[in-house]
Amino acid sequence: MEPRLDLVTLAVPDLDAARAFYVDGLGWSPALDVPGEIVFIQVNHGLLVGLFGAEDLAADMGVSAAEVTPGAGFTLAQTVDSPAAVDAVVEQARAAGARVLKEPQRADFGGYHAYFADPAGIRWEVAHNPGLRVAPDGHVTIGPVDG
Amino acid sequence: MEPRLDLVTLAVPDLDAARAFYVDGLGWSPALDVPGEIVFIQVNHGLLVGLFGAEDLAADMGVSAAEVTPGAGFTLAQTVDSPAAVDAVVEQARAAGARVLKEPQRADFGGYHAYFADPAGIRWEVAHNPGLRVAPDGHVTIGPVDG
Repeated sequence: MEPRLDLVTLAVPDLDAARAFYVDGLGWSPALDVPGEIVFIQVNHGLLVGLFGAEDLAADMGVSAAEVTPGAGFTLAQTVDSPAAVDAVVEQARAAGARVLKEPQRADFGGYHAYFADPAGIRWEVAHNPGLRVAPDGHVTIGPVDG
Repeated sequence: MEPRLDLVTLAVPDLDAARAFYVDGLGWSPALDVPGEIVFIQVNHGLLVGLFGAEDLAADMGVSAAEVTPGAGFTLAQTVDSPAAVDAVVEQARAAGARVLKEPQRADFGGYHAYFADPAGIRWEVAHNPGLRVAPDGHVTIGPVDG
């Protein structure tokens, strides 16, 4: 697993309130805004923050809603080039002592992903997302997965 | 406040266990390793993850230890070029609806920083750290603040 973080997903109690703060209040431009679902904002070279409802995030991870505290709930994510790379990273993390929360599988967004928790309980998503591209200059485009 | 995330600080219950997982298990190289205190690892262009004891993180933020849950405790951070920029960012965040947890002040690491919580309770640090430099290619060096 490469030392690379591509996405920080923040579990928020109210997506509209989160958008009002970051987009309207701070003036940050969404890379992708799907009302009622999720907002992505680019925050560094090739790096996104995702604003995501706490219950939606729990469902995506396959854990109970009680395990995601809004405001304290978040995941780190690394995107890789293929489904096989997702499998390989998860096996390396498991061997290093991670607890796999969601075995590698087709994701709702159309790609392929898994979740594991490190020994402290910190959750990482490992994903292959054909709809997410990082240009050489670090600019991120994110949209629906075709086909 | 620019849309930029420079550091994700993870509150861990056991720094040695966290190091064993990320450095020994996954093979990630620390950018700075201060045993018993903190480990920084570069995880993208100009981006660091910090492994920090949950109690130490609570103390740094000026909140009670009960407010930082190991594994669920974390902060996002943005570094800026001057103490005056810290002040300006905090005022903009306050105007946008943030709750300031720690007003701008001299930081234990030798720089100048503040913490605020967004409307969801997600905590951001805004810091001027003369010991942290990002090269044009994104490589980060972090060390003690001189003088």
